[in-house]
Amino acid sequence: MPFDNYSIIESTLREGEQFSTAAFTTAQKQTIAERLDAFGVEMIEMTSPCASPQSAADIRAVVGMGLNARILTHIRCNKDDARQALDTGAHGIDMVIGTSPQLMKHSHGKSINQIIDLAADVLSFIRQQAPDVILRFSTEDSFRSRESDLLRIYLSMADLGLVQRLGVADTVGVATPTQVGALVHQLVRLTGLHVEFHGHNDSGCAIANACAALEAGATHIDTTILGIGERNGITPLGGLIARLYTLNRRYVEKYNLTLLPQLDLLIAETCGIEIPFSNYITGSSAFIHKAGIHAKAVLADPNTYEILKPEDFGLSREIAIGHRLTGWNAIHNRALALGLSLDELTIKAITLTVKERADRQPLSLSEVDALLLEAALG
Amino acid sequence: MPFDNYSIIESTLREGEQFSTAAFTTAQKQTIAERLDAFGVEMIEMTSPCASPQSAADIRAVVGMGLNARILTHIRCNKDDARQALDTGAHGIDMVIGTSPQLMKHSHGKSINQIIDLAADVLSFIRQQAPDVILRFSTEDSFRSRESDLLRIYLSMADLGLVQRLGVADTVGVATPTQVGALVHQLVRLTGLHVEFHGHNDSGCAIANACAALEAGATHIDTTILGIGERNGITPLGGLIARLYTLNRRYVEKYNLTLLPQLDLLIAETCGIEIPFSNYITGSSAFIHKAGIHAKAVLADPNTYEILKPEDFGLSREIAIGHRLTGWNAIHNRALALGLSLDELTIKAITLTVKERADRQPLSLSEVDALLLEAALG
Repeated sequence: MPFDNYSIIESTLREGEQFSTAAFTTAQKQTIAERLDAFGVEMIEMTSPCASPQSAADIRAVVGMGLNARILTHIRCNKDDARQALDTGAHGIDMVIGTSPQLMKHSHGKSINQIIDLAADVLSFIRQQAPDVILRFSTEDSFRSRESDLLRIYLSMADLGLVQRLGVADTVGVATPTQVGALVHQLVRLTGLHVEFHGHNDSGCAIANACAALEAGATHIDTTILGIGERNGITPLGGLIARLYTLNRRYVEKYNLTLLPQLDLLIAETCGIEIPFSNYITGSSAFIHKAGIHAKAVLADPNTYEILKPEDFGLSREIAIGHRLTGWNAIHNRALALGLSLDELTIKAITLTVKERADRQPLSLSEVDALLLEAALG
Repeated sequence: MPFDNYSIIESTLREGEQFSTAAFTTAQKQTIAERLDAFGVEMIEMTSPCASPQSAADIRAVVGMGLNARILTHIRCNKDDARQALDTGAHGIDMVIGTSPQLMKHSHGKSINQIIDLAADVLSFIRQQAPDVILRFSTEDSFRSRESDLLRIYLSMADLGLVQRLGVADTVGVATPTQVGALVHQLVRLTGLHVEFHGHNDSGCAIANACAALEAGATHIDTTILGIGERNGITPLGGLIARLYTLNRRYVEKYNLTLLPQLDLLIAETCGIEIPFSNYITGSSAFIHKAGIHAKAVLADPNTYEILKPEDFGLSREIAIGHRLTGWNAIHNRALALGLSLDELTIKAITLTVKERADRQPLSLSEVDALLLEAALG
């Protein structure tokens, strides 16, 4: 079954470092890795050791923590990068090379045949040095690459028998779920290897694309906390969890869901950003119900307007009542919560008063309470 | 062609009012409507006149502005709501009723047969009173409704010949693009009516679902500015624009794209929220390129890592260079921008210095400039 056996490759410490305000210290990387491990992600990807001296040292430091999660690093397609990655002791190496006409021209200048030869050469070198390292080959900008180029490259790499995993990358955030599903399905069908999906969110489909990849048989999904990454980022960890939870809560039971709010907060604080008001699960408004019709039904049964249970994430819902869209059921419920027994006519009159006053300015909860108490005390 | 003839139903003044901190004054509603009209949305949906006295008056005020956009309002399935909506002079009435088992039980308590009879009765009443009003019938929580129930209801409503448009609503944010496409396709195929999609974003698929609806033949998509609405909201206007632009820029040429940043800012200010850092097009990081490989390619051709052109939205890109992921091409480009001619070895040495210093703390642009100037002046 597609969703029963997938792994998260958590790339906050690689893709996430490419977010504009991210600059993690060693200690911060260790804290992030430790909390991701406690949450239960299967793999943690870290910045290339070639980026800077500290980047190399930090991989060693995180590998040295002895976490359950496997530690991966990320390299370009060349032996020098490979050598430095091998030196870090990372459990896995994720190699990538651009294959779209745009990147072939401006990133490395190589032809498809040259890419195939070079990749084979570097992968063979790595495999000789480290028979047990988890090895991935990925194209970059896969969805602007020619399909025939992609198949030639992937099928050549699969034929070598050196890598466990093929990566598919929507580097510019242009793919649709249908396209992602089709390519992943081809690779799964033709190679039998693990397939990873990495998706940017420029056009808002990073979560849907990740889900389409899993449906098509992908085994690994890249995420970052809050989705941080180049430009507006990639599939957010919390968003992927929300999506899989709503399909079937069983798909995410292997993770410690109540740790998610802390993870989002940690990255927001570390990067000096706000958790978006609209963020999945942890946004300020995620579990606020406002319109009277919604409030009425949620009071009767939260499942009416909640596809995610806030308590599963250690959070709680809020029913807003002091506004012009309020309804008498919500006001009635508040009266009951205050221990006041008021008849329906009185409750409806107070509801009208709240609406009229809220037309000028929303009421605080204590202002609504004051109206209810006043009516009860006569 | 699916994307050639669609309309945006901009619901910031209805769904958006259901966002936790939204409480628009009449003047604010008029400003928002006027700017949405200038942007070019085809329809503007406003809160039900039954919500509060000001809500009814505000519809009249916005209708009175004489905008190009058609003004719609939103009602429950009953004659009293219909009467109040007719009194406002709105150009269109969007009627909705819950059809999932959850909402049938806790929202209105009616059976499918009762829903069909009631809806027919209310729609007939509206059509008698207002032969020219644009009339829509929508189910609520469509994707947790039984498919057979949905078809019975929609096909009965289509058979009446009273409505121009059927609405499909992912009220709890649970649908997948495949499900949305399938239902919309059925309705288009069987009824020939216009079909509208309204999608919440609890599990991150609101944009992908809207796009799947259009691919399947939907004619109308609901949006709000920044996606504000109940809980974490619906398909954001800017996100839908980004998605359609990346498919084919021609699909969004009918809108004044450079007005989008002002719209996002207006709602953020009015609701006292921040534009999410990761927001489509207008987020603070949307056009920042950081990793050395990205910077190098973007300097050669922005199309390498940009699927949206910032200048089409009146925005500009930024290439960050003072961090550990920087590359020598970006540093070289900065030297050229400063009018300095430094040889490759010097540039590479400065790049290493930047990386080492950035391992402790990222450098500001003026600190990078100081290193370059120092090298140039010997």
